[in-house]
Amino acid sequence: MIFYRQAANAGDSVERAITRVVARGRTDYQEYLFFVSAVHGLCIALDGDIQSCESDEAAYHEALVHPAMLLHPNPRRVLIMGGGEGATAREVLRHACVEQVVMVDIDEAFVALCREHAPGWSAGAFDDPRLEVRYEDIRDYLAATDVAYDVVIGDLVDFTDLASPVAALYSHDFYHAVLERAADDALLATQGGALATGHLDGHVRIRRGLAAAFAHVVTCGLVVPSFYSLWGYVVAARQPVDTASHALAETFTTRAAERGLGEMAVGPRALAAAFELPDWLRRELDNHPVGTP
Amino acid sequence: MIFYRQAANAGDSVERAITRVVARGRTDYQEYLFFVSAVHGLCIALDGDIQSCESDEAAYHEALVHPAMLLHPNPRRVLIMGGGEGATAREVLRHACVEQVVMVDIDEAFVALCREHAPGWSAGAFDDPRLEVRYEDIRDYLAATDVAYDVVIGDLVDFTDLASPVAALYSHDFYHAVLERAADDALLATQGGALATGHLDGHVRIRRGLAAAFAHVVTCGLVVPSFYSLWGYVVAARQPVDTASHALAETFTTRAAERGLGEMAVGPRALAAAFELPDWLRRELDNHPVGTP
Amino acid sequence: MIFYRQAANAGDSVERAITRVVARGRTDYQEYLFFVSAVHGLCIALDGDIQSCESDEAAYHEALVHPAMLLHPNPRRVLIMGGGEGATAREVLRHACVEQVVMVDIDEAFVALCREHAPGWSAGAFDDPRLEVRYEDIRDYLAATDVAYDVVIGDLVDFTDLASPVAALYSHDFYHAVLERAADDALLATQGGALATGHLDGHVRIRRGLAAAFAHVVTCGLVVPSFYSLWGYVVAARQPVDTASHALAETFTTRAAERGLGEMAVGPRALAAAFELPDWLRRELDNHPVGTP
Amino acid sequence: MIFYRQAANAGDSVERAITRVVARGRTDYQEYLFFVSAVHGLCIALDGDIQSCESDEAAYHEALVHPAMLLHPNPRRVLIMGGGEGATAREVLRHACVEQVVMVDIDEAFVALCREHAPGWSAGAFDDPRLEVRYEDIRDYLAATDVAYDVVIGDLVDFTDLASPVAALYSHDFYHAVLERAADDALLATQGGALATGHLDGHVRIRRGLAAAFAHVVTCGLVVPSFYSLWGYVVAARQPVDTASHALAETFTTRAAERGLGEMAVGPRALAAAFELPDWLRRELDNHPVGTP
Repeated sequence: MIFYRQAANAGDSVERAITRVVARGRTDYQEYLFFVSAVHGLCIALDGDIQSCESDEAAYHEALVHPAMLLHPNPRRVLIMGGGEGATAREVLRHACVEQVVMVDIDEAFVALCREHAPGWSAGAFDDPRLEVRYEDIRDYLAATDVAYDVVIGDLVDFTDLASPVAALYSHDFYHAVLERAADDALLATQGGALATGHLDGHVRIRRGLAAAFAHVVTCGLVVPSFYSLWGYVVAARQPVDTASHALAETFTTRAAERGLGEMAVGPRALAAAFELPDWLRRELDNHPVGTP
Repeated sequence: MIFYRQAANAGDSVERAITRVVARGRTDYQEYLFFVSAVHGLCIALDGDIQSCESDEAAYHEALVHPAMLLHPNPRRVLIMGGGEGATAREVLRHACVEQVVMVDIDEAFVALCREHAPGWSAGAFDDPRLEVRYEDIRDYLAATDVAYDVVIGDLVDFTDLASPVAALYSHDFYHAVLERAADDALLATQGGALATGHLDGHVRIRRGLAAAFAHVVTCGLVVPSFYSLWGYVVAARQPVDTASHALAETFTTRAAERGLGEMAVGPRALAAAFELPDWLRRELDNHPVGTP
Repeated sequence: MIFYRQAANAGDSVERAITRVVARGRTDYQEYLFFVSAVHGLCIALDGDIQSCESDEAAYHEALVHPAMLLHPNPRRVLIMGGGEGATAREVLRHACVEQVVMVDIDEAFVALCREHAPGWSAGAFDDPRLEVRYEDIRDYLAATDVAYDVVIGDLVDFTDLASPVAALYSHDFYHAVLERAADDALLATQGGALATGHLDGHVRIRRGLAAAFAHVVTCGLVVPSFYSLWGYVVAARQPVDTASHALAETFTTRAAERGLGEMAVGPRALAAAFELPDWLRRELDNHPVGTP
Repeated sequence: MIFYRQAANAGDSVERAITRVVARGRTDYQEYLFFVSAVHGLCIALDGDIQSCESDEAAYHEALVHPAMLLHPNPRRVLIMGGGEGATAREVLRHACVEQVVMVDIDEAFVALCREHAPGWSAGAFDDPRLEVRYEDIRDYLAATDVAYDVVIGDLVDFTDLASPVAALYSHDFYHAVLERAADDALLATQGGALATGHLDGHVRIRRGLAAAFAHVVTCGLVVPSFYSLWGYVVAARQPVDTASHALAETFTTRAAERGLGEMAVGPRALAAAFELPDWLRRELDNHPVGTP
């Protein structure tokens, strides 16, 4: 029996039975592993960390993309930071109002691997004329561009090592640079790591990075079954975000219909409900205010 | 290093680092294991299946107890089927309106073990004069009693083996017997196993058992971090249950305040939001209608 | 990280880190897996059971082949039953006196996979004009041939399920059929599974199968590091085998030199020493006399 | 299911099913764990490293003690360095010629735990008037004593971390101190870690430490099933040790009978055969000459 093991936290780990190893190797930037899980279908891991799995990548990417997109009244220009698998672009492009999407991922080889081995993730997005893909450091791009984006999506790998190059992409400085490229009413969303008892450090760090640049920072959480965890996402804006789930559900439902989103994995009502965090989690986040280092 | 391993589904399993084995053995009915996890504190397993863990048993038991209790305008008589750890009784007794709780668990030895090794689970409930604990087969009790219960909570172990004695406690016949002891406006709640992609058989079986007796069957799902899964609960009633989360949130919030529930692990708003299932899950449940075998 | 896990016995198992999965699938007869282990190099598993690993397959196959070959004064005709990897043939052909080797393996597809992915195992043996490879059921071959073999080597997969088709290849009937094709002074050798405390059932079964046909049955044991166990081999003959290690060491050393075996993995002296079983093992085998069912 | 996992090398690990945890904690010197394995009976681990198991500790300790004892014509005074479990003393005391045994183990608490939980290991040795147990640093004892020992047995824990305090007990300096307390014809024996392909560093380090003090250093290897490995031992002396297994077998057999050793786990012949290392291992050890650092 072959399996893939990944630590869930300091004590526990999850083993996934592997049906087939599709590709394994190293690009200039990271180690990749594409394998077929007996339970979750095709899974993609980078540097020993599962990125998404066929069985529920749609849910994962909907929760990353749609809250910010649907909170914005009319997102036309969208920036994707990272997003190599192509699924984030796919979800962004479902919004009929979108005119221009720029996806900036440093790892061209990984994008090619995803297009070859996981074409369902992008599902044609790379052929959409509204999408421009750039293979460069996102910081260089931010310094050079003068587009004012309506929505910015951060689809970057997790980091636990504060000394890793990825850590810079969650820093105060970085988000200040993002802020300069964001329109006044822009929304930013990023995946925010696992939301688990006693395991909130990563999420709190991301909230703090964003809070250095944006006045309002909100967490939502959705279970991603193949991650074996409640997964956190952060939405940030200059203006307050009304997260009362009733209002959100209405807004999300109306705009999803207007923009022709069609059948969804999570859907507008459950996406709205994802902002109703359990009290234990709300209290733990309150104990780590975003304004403090 | 010592670990506890439990299968999550047909392909994957979770390993938990063990700090200390507190008690291990067998009662007349089941194998028990109390151990301290490095991450989740004290954990209780029966027949190789984690029942609840110190770090989030409050969330688990709130989601089991409070939706049904709060949906009822004035629950005075409550029946707990199983519930040996004492935490379900603890949650029921938090509702000031409750006058009488009968907990029927066949395994007296296991209840004694929980009182000795996990006193925080019952937190004094066994000393509450409103609680009567009976050590007998729940079917015998249902045949003999003539109390009409307002709320019935099923806190029974999972089963995967249809031939196991526990399976009878999820059968059509059994729920018909429960129905006879339930007041006209009674609500029944039971834990319903994991809600995971391609792993809904157990939950669907429970829904069908209940649907044989109750006209309305509703699922809610809450992530229990130490279970590494979205966890399912089923609420059943003769009358329709309005699960629009907005209405639920108001009802839950108002009644929780009236009954003096105080600080909660999940809280009324997130409990209401737990009824907003993601569309993929709603569709999968719709594909397994409760009325069919 | 990817791992291969295999049970060592009823309670323990060994996990091997996998660097690369080379091939995985199913022939008409068995599931195969070729993978590169971080520690043992290329490993070949059939039906979830490691067959041999690059790091020490030489030792494994020497211990299978050379004791019987070196005990015979002049082995010219050798029959290999199974042996799909080609390494058994390679070792047999090292003896200069050998004139004819027939290898009978039912699984042509597996032999082709070994030639493609593990050419070091056969190391040219398949091109040796003295070797004839036949893809058929060994029982059919034995019924049809009239060659009187000097040495017969059984290189067959293990079996634990008495109902499996492989079990027939370790049965009394089968060894009677082998006996009829063996010259009067022939030696038969077969791998005999793990020799471990409380785990001798498999080895004892093989000894009994052979003892039904051959008057003398001797066990030797050699540690194969990648098997994480002392490994058993059985040598059988009509005439007594003198296993006093002093005599064996001399015979083995002299004949190995005469036949030009050259540098060996185990060598004649350690192969002779492998017949000196520890007393605990000798006693356990004595408690399971070969003559009883 | 509860299990104990221990790395076997840089890539692989062994999982042992645990039936019962007997004791777990920390003395002033080390973490201890006594557990019952489903396969190996009671097992004792220190700092995450299995020391010995009920099913084959007799074999392990025989291979540690008897080669050196039987190579000496008349061992009367024996020093045990470490040996907290008491089994090494038990084996030494089986030799009728022994008059005085001094066992020096720094960890009094661990010795007490072994006497309580694993009395079969010492089997009365602690009550033998010939045995003196001292709880102190072996280096202090060596500096203070003026006894000239006939045999010195090193029964110390393994080390992989060169900076650990245990490492000093395998150093050149340490063995020079031992040498000064050893009679002219003394033999020294120590356990030497696993002997596995590509995993000989530990064993080679021990050989080099001893070679700094003793002119002749010999390795023998015996499979210890519960260790899932061939296990190495080193015998050292000022005079050459004749390891031709024929001579050894005779010497061992004769002296074992003279000294009344009785029924043994391994026995004199298999102990002698344990000096016939496979050629691959002999070559690997030759590539790491003991005289070089």
